[in-house]
Amino acid sequence: AASHSGWQGQVRTGGHKEYVGFATLPNQVHRKSVKKGFDFTLMVAGESGLGKSTLVNSLFLTDLYKDRKLLNAEERITQTVEITKHTVDIEEKGVKLKLTIVDTPGFGDAVNNTECWKSVADYIDQQFEQYFRDESGLNRKNIQDNRVHCCLYFISPFGHGLRPLDVEFMKALHEKVNIVPILAKADTLTPNEVKKKKFKIREEIEQYGIKIYQFPDCDSDEDEDFKQQDQELKDSIPFAVIGSNTVVEAKGKRVRGRLYPWGIVEVENSAHCDFVKLRNMLVRTHMQDLKDVTRETHYENYRAHCIQSMTRMVVKERNRKQTPNRNGEEAMLMNISSWIKFTTECLGNQVI
Amino acid sequence: AASHSGWQGQVRTGGHKEYVGFATLPNQVHRKSVKKGFDFTLMVAGESGLGKSTLVNSLFLTDLYKDRKLLNAEERITQTVEITKHTVDIEEKGVKLKLTIVDTPGFGDAVNNTECWKSVADYIDQQFEQYFRDESGLNRKNIQDNRVHCCLYFISPFGHGLRPLDVEFMKALHEKVNIVPILAKADTLTPNEVKKKKFKIREEIEQYGIKIYQFPDCDSDEDEDFKQQDQELKDSIPFAVIGSNTVVEAKGKRVRGRLYPWGIVEVENSAHCDFVKLRNMLVRTHMQDLKDVTRETHYENYRAHCIQSMTRMVVKERNRKQTPNRNGEEAMLMNISSWIKFTTECLGNQVI
Repeated sequence: AASHSGWQGQVRTGGHKEYVGFATLPNQVHRKSVKKGFDFTLMVAGESGLGKSTLVNSLFLTDLYKDRKLLNAEERITQTVEITKHTVDIEEKGVKLKLTIVDTPGFGDAVNNTECWKSVADYIDQQFEQYFRDESGLNRKNIQDNRVHCCLYFISPFGHGLRPLDVEFMKALHEKVNIVPILAKADTLTPNEVKKKKFKIREEIEQYGIKIYQFPDCDSDEDEDFKQQDQELKDSIPFAVIGSNTVVEAKGKRVRGRLYPWGIVEVENSAHCDFVKLRNMLVRTHMQDLKDVTRETHYENYRAHCIQSMTRMVVKERNRKQTPNRNGEEAMLMNISSWIKFTTECLGNQVI
Repeated sequence: AASHSGWQGQVRTGGHKEYVGFATLPNQVHRKSVKKGFDFTLMVAGESGLGKSTLVNSLFLTDLYKDRKLLNAEERITQTVEITKHTVDIEEKGVKLKLTIVDTPGFGDAVNNTECWKSVADYIDQQFEQYFRDESGLNRKNIQDNRVHCCLYFISPFGHGLRPLDVEFMKALHEKVNIVPILAKADTLTPNEVKKKKFKIREEIEQYGIKIYQFPDCDSDEDEDFKQQDQELKDSIPFAVIGSNTVVEAKGKRVRGRLYPWGIVEVENSAHCDFVKLRNMLVRTHMQDLKDVTRETHYENYRAHCIQSMTRMVVKERNRKQTPNRNGEEAMLMNISSWIKFTTECLGNQVI
């Protein structure tokens, strides 16, 4: 209804402040976005058994892994890191979301995990490359955008902070994707242990120069309540989560949880874990920002790198051929249209 | 406040339908758009004296033409069509709009107006070209988008329908910009004359194959009130307007209007003219659509034409040079990356 306000807009004259009506622009954008629908691509990474699938199902209240086939130990040892994609169309209050989950099953399962991050990094790059080709092409009406907007990286609750593999993985990916670290299966840790482990992990992230997803700064004009919640969110990293797809009864209420002989773990109880905080961040408050950072920072970085390395290739090729017009080369390189020229010459060469 | 709803989102379990929370996505978009601010570029065209400047000032309640210098008859006869740009930053209810008005003073003033639309068409193309270069370049962070989103074309109330110049102008521009025809200075026409003239003009627009801006179809799920207003809007073309920047007193109220010995013309009285309808359409309901159509249709058409004509140039050049690899040429042309290659080779040649 808000988006129609334009029709009802009142113009008052004579003493009152007049109103043009462009204040409805955000509503027009709002309306258009609903009409068009949304998409979001979430990657989950981390070793098997940390509850990646369960968490995703809990987050989106959907069963993305109906047909999953669990591998036995023998299969898992020799298995390469295989990337799988699940897509569901979900709708809520008239808002449509095409959700894609990119899974990296078997990650870290092998005995030797050297460069196991490579296929994941390649996957992310391939999506960027495809988008680069598509947006440079002639018909851009229905480009399928498969760029990965966020990577939930699951850290084992059993490690003393980060494991070398965690560091290697995150460092290999942090300039390609928004990494959100998750402290998995937090129901094996007491509140005090969670606190200590979080502190240690944050410290190590800092120490190793890992650039995880940075929550945008709060606007100064926000109310105190909002600012406090925002600060709490920032202090919760890595989100300690417990997933569950089963509903149990706790104190007469039916809740998502895990029933232990010593009590019931309630997934959505913020005294028990950060599940609700993570979901709020990922879905309700920062989903659009994750998309914007992907588009404006990670993709633009990829594109710039791509153009630059192609340029170097072309220059080398020209030198090899001893092209006579070597002189103006440097100046030309600074010319934007030349950049494009080089880019696409190379893109062309790759394909032809 | 709506945009914060994520924080307050309630998750209800036990019998109630659970709620993930991505329904807040449009609010996240809404919020981001407000933060970023909006821009809109409006062109006004038509012969001098039809009240273009007055209308623009009335529409946006701002004085865009403080420093305007009116030319005398002698100056106007020899004057070429000169394009001028005025930009104002306006704010309303926290929503910021950078409004640019592109004016074509003197249009139609000369004795011989052959091809007077050319400089206007060139101007629009130049903005597209600049954008094409910028979005193909390396640093795309702060691209200035000067593409023209809408052209209000002023039709004289004295013509018997459209004049040949009107037809020529609109046909020259209708594939480059969203044309909204305006029946200017409607206070010289009786309601019956307005009705007849509108009908005639609509008929001629149809007859000459002029493609003016098409209001998007109403969603089927809209309420009846909205649908009716939408239909009324479509039936109002061309908008019969009367502009005024002076406030007069009518029946005890102070209104924008024109004081005649026989009565007061109230600009914002919908029984007197379509000013409010035009403003509602342009500002409150369709501004975002005008931008989207510009981006998705007019600009994409320009870009495709540009790439295609460049390709032809390159092919011709190659044939002239009798390049040996003539054989695979056609196949290559179909290859997207080749398209880009050709494009940018040409773009490069133009600049170097």
